[in-house]
Amino acid sequence: MIDRLTERIEQLNNPAVVGLDPTLEMMPSGLRREMYERFGRTPKAVGEMFAAFNRTIVDSVSDIVPAVKPQIAMYERYGLDGVSAYLRTTDYAAARGLLVIGDVKRGDIASTAEAYAAHLAGVEVEGERFDPWKEDAVTIHPYLGADSVMPFVDACKNFGKAVFVLIKTSNAGSGDIQDLRTAGDAPVYARVARLVSEWGRDCIGTRGYSRVGAVVGATHKETGAYLRSLLPHTFFLVPGYGAQGAGAEDVRGFFDAAGGGAVVNSSRGITAAWLKRATGSGGGDSVSLRDVGQAARDAAIEMRDRLREVIA
Amino acid sequence: MIDRLTERIEQLNNPAVVGLDPTLEMMPSGLRREMYERFGRTPKAVGEMFAAFNRTIVDSVSDIVPAVKPQIAMYERYGLDGVSAYLRTTDYAAARGLLVIGDVKRGDIASTAEAYAAHLAGVEVEGERFDPWKEDAVTIHPYLGADSVMPFVDACKNFGKAVFVLIKTSNAGSGDIQDLRTAGDAPVYARVARLVSEWGRDCIGTRGYSRVGAVVGATHKETGAYLRSLLPHTFFLVPGYGAQGAGAEDVRGFFDAAGGGAVVNSSRGITAAWLKRATGSGGGDSVSLRDVGQAARDAAIEMRDRLREVIA
Repeated sequence: MIDRLTERIEQLNNPAVVGLDPTLEMMPSGLRREMYERFGRTPKAVGEMFAAFNRTIVDSVSDIVPAVKPQIAMYERYGLDGVSAYLRTTDYAAARGLLVIGDVKRGDIASTAEAYAAHLAGVEVEGERFDPWKEDAVTIHPYLGADSVMPFVDACKNFGKAVFVLIKTSNAGSGDIQDLRTAGDAPVYARVARLVSEWGRDCIGTRGYSRVGAVVGATHKETGAYLRSLLPHTFFLVPGYGAQGAGAEDVRGFFDAAGGGAVVNSSRGITAAWLKRATGSGGGDSVSLRDVGQAARDAAIEMRDRLREVIA
Repeated sequence: MIDRLTERIEQLNNPAVVGLDPTLEMMPSGLRREMYERFGRTPKAVGEMFAAFNRTIVDSVSDIVPAVKPQIAMYERYGLDGVSAYLRTTDYAAARGLLVIGDVKRGDIASTAEAYAAHLAGVEVEGERFDPWKEDAVTIHPYLGADSVMPFVDACKNFGKAVFVLIKTSNAGSGDIQDLRTAGDAPVYARVARLVSEWGRDCIGTRGYSRVGAVVGATHKETGAYLRSLLPHTFFLVPGYGAQGAGAEDVRGFFDAAGGGAVVNSSRGITAAWLKRATGSGGGDSVSLRDVGQAARDAAIEMRDRLREVIA
């Protein structure tokens, strides 16, 4: 998957990923009204809004970005109807030729991790394999150690997928545990980084990057550059661009000398771009999904162009 | 929730929790055949098996144990049909008076954690609150720090729920990160333990335990006793009993002097107890759900009696 991702990034000359993290507040009021009329004021209605909204975003950016990254928490929040919207989103994005990075942040002991690895491997029922999740990669936690990660690594090898292990996250509290100094003075995240590198050692692709990648937050500029030098074969998934405060200049150091080795995610900055335009126009009453898509497309192009400037 | 859990443990004189972690291999062949006939050899059929199987287990142990702990990975593996079985399981268990600990091991940055906290808080749609998950508590990862935990703590306070933060897990690889020595020589898990204690400081219930509990694996006997002394107000959820190798003697030190402050989970040891009996009887062809329930009930009573001996 990392080789395919790299190729797609080069074809499009764009290392940007669009985060599909819908909220009810992000839905234009016309869409809300329609779904409430059809399904009542229910989680089902919200799931239908999210699925329709995401189809619009996907259609608007599928020729611009190599991948989308739906954040499953935003869907799980609405129970089964939300999860259904998530699955329809991954299915639709995959059908439109986008790579899908499921931001699921799973992590559990070995036997359970094997079950979670079905996100990548699919599942067998009496000899027939099903792939309910349609994800090309997922994000996972490192806290439980090697045997919690290996089932995902095996799934990556066997099914051409990838996994991104959290090393240093973009949030303010990331330091509480990740920055603890270990006995040799290296922070915990640097020790995790070494482990991630080991875990991915024997699945390095033709482009020099392993199927075992890492999540490194854009909000930590120096850390990103440090980890880039420490991990020459580890592909980075970089959240925190845009709404979380980091800009193109901040992520320059996350890329390798050739401008490869990383994708940068923006969620609200793309999907909620229409809200900025609609301010003052009555809260989106007259906003169509077409307007939503156009604003997302414009924002995605702007992000692409900014990233091109810094990694050129 | 921790007060209610404590009361229920005292009423039943039993700190055992039954893990609902179904696998296809664990389904008796009669049940498999029935569901394959009705739904084809599909994830849907497996979800229906899991839901029926779990109803049997819940009915068989609801007057013996205070709580069940479904492991969501075993359901997610089968996609939407699996998640549907999970939700029907939590709903059914709650309706039968059991407390439900959702073993979901979520964890993400603040805004996303808020979405995940809907597992406990439910979700609002235009002013009306829905509770799709029916969980009284969930398990979460600590790696992202305080702001990833606080939305769950808030949900606990506002909705009478609890959260169990991973401190030291039961698996072999748990040492990779959790046992790293920090600068002051304390292992990472001990630093996490201190944080968990802080995070739960202002929601300690009438029985002396906080709504912010911890996961501490039964396979680490000494660590459990050490953490018990370190964390007098932190309730422990203790996995790893039975199939993972720990016995009643191993978990004695996880309890406080009064025999409180912890629940011990067994999954396969209870739910797959029928498989041991059925060995030699043709792989369960003649095994009914009633036999499955009886074997689970007997195993749950045996576990209860063993735990009573050591914490008496």
